[in-house]
Amino acid sequence: MESKLKTAKESLIQMTELVLPNDTNVFGNLMGGRLMYWMDIAAALSAQKHANAPVVTASVDNISFESPIKLGNAVYIVAKVSRAFNSSMEVHMQVWGEDLKNQYKYKSNEAYYTFVALDAAGKSAPVPQLIPETEEEIRLFDGALRRRQLRLILGGKMKPNDAVELKALFADAR
Amino acid sequence: MESKLKTAKESLIQMTELVLPNDTNVFGNLMGGRLMYWMDIAAALSAQKHANAPVVTASVDNISFESPIKLGNAVYIVAKVSRAFNSSMEVHMQVWGEDLKNQYKYKSNEAYYTFVALDAAGKSAPVPQLIPETEEEIRLFDGALRRRQLRLILGGKMKPNDAVELKALFADAR
Amino acid sequence: MESKLKTAKESLIQMTELVLPNDTNVFGNLMGGRLMYWMDIAAALSAQKHANAPVVTASVDNISFESPIKLGNAVYIVAKVSRAFNSSMEVHMQVWGEDLKNQYKYKSNEAYYTFVALDAAGKSAPVPQLIPETEEEIRLFDGALRRRQLRLILGGKMKPNDAVELKALFADAR
Amino acid sequence: MESKLKTAKESLIQMTELVLPNDTNVFGNLMGGRLMYWMDIAAALSAQKHANAPVVTASVDNISFESPIKLGNAVYIVAKVSRAFNSSMEVHMQVWGEDLKNQYKYKSNEAYYTFVALDAAGKSAPVPQLIPETEEEIRLFDGALRRRQLRLILGGKMKPNDAVELKALFADAR
Amino acid sequence: MESKLKTAKESLIQMTELVLPNDTNVFGNLMGGRLMYWMDIAAALSAQKHANAPVVTASVDNISFESPIKLGNAVYIVAKVSRAFNSSMEVHMQVWGEDLKNQYKYKSNEAYYTFVALDAAGKSAPVPQLIPETEEEIRLFDGALRRRQLRLILGGKMKPNDAVELKALFADAR
Amino acid sequence: MESKLKTAKESLIQMTELVLPNDTNVFGNLMGGRLMYWMDIAAALSAQKHANAPVVTASVDNISFESPIKLGNAVYIVAKVSRAFNSSMEVHMQVWGEDLKNQYKYKSNEAYYTFVALDAAGKSAPVPQLIPETEEEIRLFDGALRRRQLRLILGGKMKPNDAVELKALFADAR
Repeated sequence: MESKLKTAKESLIQMTELVLPNDTNVFGNLMGGRLMYWMDIAAALSAQKHANAPVVTASVDNISFESPIKLGNAVYIVAKVSRAFNSSMEVHMQVWGEDLKNQYKYKSNEAYYTFVALDAAGKSAPVPQLIPETEEEIRLFDGALRRRQLRLILGGKMKPNDAVELKALFADAR
Repeated sequence: MESKLKTAKESLIQMTELVLPNDTNVFGNLMGGRLMYWMDIAAALSAQKHANAPVVTASVDNISFESPIKLGNAVYIVAKVSRAFNSSMEVHMQVWGEDLKNQYKYKSNEAYYTFVALDAAGKSAPVPQLIPETEEEIRLFDGALRRRQLRLILGGKMKPNDAVELKALFADAR
Repeated sequence: MESKLKTAKESLIQMTELVLPNDTNVFGNLMGGRLMYWMDIAAALSAQKHANAPVVTASVDNISFESPIKLGNAVYIVAKVSRAFNSSMEVHMQVWGEDLKNQYKYKSNEAYYTFVALDAAGKSAPVPQLIPETEEEIRLFDGALRRRQLRLILGGKMKPNDAVELKALFADAR
Repeated sequence: MESKLKTAKESLIQMTELVLPNDTNVFGNLMGGRLMYWMDIAAALSAQKHANAPVVTASVDNISFESPIKLGNAVYIVAKVSRAFNSSMEVHMQVWGEDLKNQYKYKSNEAYYTFVALDAAGKSAPVPQLIPETEEEIRLFDGALRRRQLRLILGGKMKPNDAVELKALFADAR
Repeated sequence: MESKLKTAKESLIQMTELVLPNDTNVFGNLMGGRLMYWMDIAAALSAQKHANAPVVTASVDNISFESPIKLGNAVYIVAKVSRAFNSSMEVHMQVWGEDLKNQYKYKSNEAYYTFVALDAAGKSAPVPQLIPETEEEIRLFDGALRRRQLRLILGGKMKPNDAVELKALFADAR
Repeated sequence: MESKLKTAKESLIQMTELVLPNDTNVFGNLMGGRLMYWMDIAAALSAQKHANAPVVTASVDNISFESPIKLGNAVYIVAKVSRAFNSSMEVHMQVWGEDLKNQYKYKSNEAYYTFVALDAAGKSAPVPQLIPETEEEIRLFDGALRRRQLRLILGGKMKPNDAVELKALFADAR
């Protein structure tokens, strides 16, 4: 299975949900935790489409919630694998809300979740490499190394000194 | 709002769900009732996209469940308005299951749900007319009258004798 | 087990639910999908009482939603097998809502769900024949053949020409 | 409304539920807490039928869980008001489980929940007096005073010395 | 395992929940049944911490609901085993609500749930004895015998005459 | 309200949950999304305790999931505000799982969620400053500025060049 190549679009998942009363806070806005739950399922399905194996959530990158999504609005989550490593995959997601009555669609947030594929014994399993095709897919593929270094540093598994890609960002900034 | 025209594809809703333990019967298969619940939400969102007004479910046509969808599989629901009447809309849906590990995608069922648009006072409200564009959309648009007659007869609101479209079907059959 | 006979009333299931916030749309009315979910469980239990075997939902006939059921109201579902075939059973349901404060009880809808009994290996299993006793049970039993033909035609498994019971309906109508 | 009289059977609620995976503990048995949740809803609907007013749970008497109800089994709850006081009502419930495949129905438990009727301002409201008719209803009606004294003692609102009905029980026992 | 001794505080469970729309009645107050469901889980976890074995709910003592907990408020449940018998344990719980905006914390109710520990075969299993340490723990430990007699009498498993501890209560009261 | 000072421990929230079947993936492990949902509620309650005002989730920092939490295990979430800014608060959380049968407690993950307090009109509202007391609280308080800069950079609201605290990290690393 290691030698297989798959395109980014083969892992596309489009999820649509309706904001119900129990999903909302006292302002009638979708709670962040409920959205992260839906995103986890959308991203896990995308990673499974790529890996053709069960997956578990390994990490979630910084998420910033922009516009609140209102009770009764639609939530659209578009998930696609942005890069595959040995047995892990980074999934990129975009989230919109839509007020269907007023035809007003707005960006809620963007996020990266990372998953690890497992074999039947629960050990990490190799996944196909990802071929980005569109300009957007290539941009996400290229940025994946930098985000991975940040994840490793934040997880205490890499020293800032070894994060070549990331260091450049701050060096350029001087 | 009556004079407005909208295409079928403007009402497209793509919903993806994951079958969890509580959605299944003792065979580990998705329960029909849970699927009909998801379909109702997908179809209601599609009808709202067309009507730009809140909607309520008026009726559901005969649904036949073909292949059972297994625990852990993905469920895909694609919903699109097939025809608009004065204040009601027929939404056509196709449902697939997918075993992501074995890359096996299978048709589960197809269905028509009908919704009525309501204004702020809860009275039925006029909706835009629907323009079918693709061959498939035109076929669904044309069949909508026949299905509507069947709904009216089954609901006791039309006599078989007055169902011109439907009678032809049985007359031809002689 | 094939030779066993059971009465309709042996399969009676009476379900009562309370409409909670998450069951409702923006008008505070019970969503059609939630009701169909409850009906699926009530009907499945009724079919299991008759079959003494696990069952799966095979099809749902046209459902027309009459009066909306309000938030905080009670929902009553009465389910009973109307006719048994080889391994399938048609279950008839009546649904009412009740505003307990104002002692106002109203009919919401009526429906037929069809289930198939399965054995331990997941193969369709024979079910006892049903004995209708009351006038109402006999009327439902007699109509079951006509509804079955309609299901087969709508499911593309019978030609209108072969639907003897159903053709008569339109023939009479000329 | 105080002067109105209502029979016990006017408050009858019959609830049926199916035990799903999320309702069970690691032994595949219905969790006590989930059952008490369903019982609270069944009893509240029964009290509302009697009071024709919204109600809130005031207390729950000792409940002893006998036979565990298994995953996939049916749960039957039969609730009926056993006695009405000024603005409170005691509701008696019996709960059974049923293994539908093996046609084995078993008693799970029996319980008394007490509710208070409220008016629109949230103040306690008078309820109709209850007329027990059957032998069983009369027995439950008669025992209600004794159970009420026990509730008041256990709630610290009555001294054992004042519990005339209850004292007799222990006096007789000497 | 029988000879082991454990302190009360080793079984401490602190649960916090947020009251969401679906947990409330028409007054926007937490439903008693939902609270009893949460209490059952908190108490079961406490009993499992003590027994180091799976447990099932055996009985629930009289619960009196004092102050209603409002939508959006926090619910705090503090559970601790109060006494262990052969294979059963009594768990004591205190429940508070808190209006976080107004910094108003209030007692909702207090309760005793009893659990039985089970072995892998589902048979009742011996549990460690409990060592109460604080004044409060000793008071709860001492009262446990009296509550147990009441449970046995109410469950029809002991005659009032044999309830030595309980009889004293009414004898004193003369 | 701006001038008020509150200690970190005043915002302590301890949440305990039980992993049920519907919370798990096909390996019987708690899904990351469900955990993030519980963490959002725990953290929101902690932020509300500090702010005495309703709050909304503004962002979530990188989360790395270490040990999977198993079906039937307990989940412990301890949340406390680590630093308050003008109208936003960073909440620090630690999450453990516990296998109660084997008395095995393990760290699952650690996270920072940021919330904004809102007034009745939905505008951001000032919150009390936070006084860290313990060594651990002071360490978390000090690190909060660095994490905030990272959030702003990742959210595209600050240039790496302006992130003084963060730049030092990479400069030291050379």
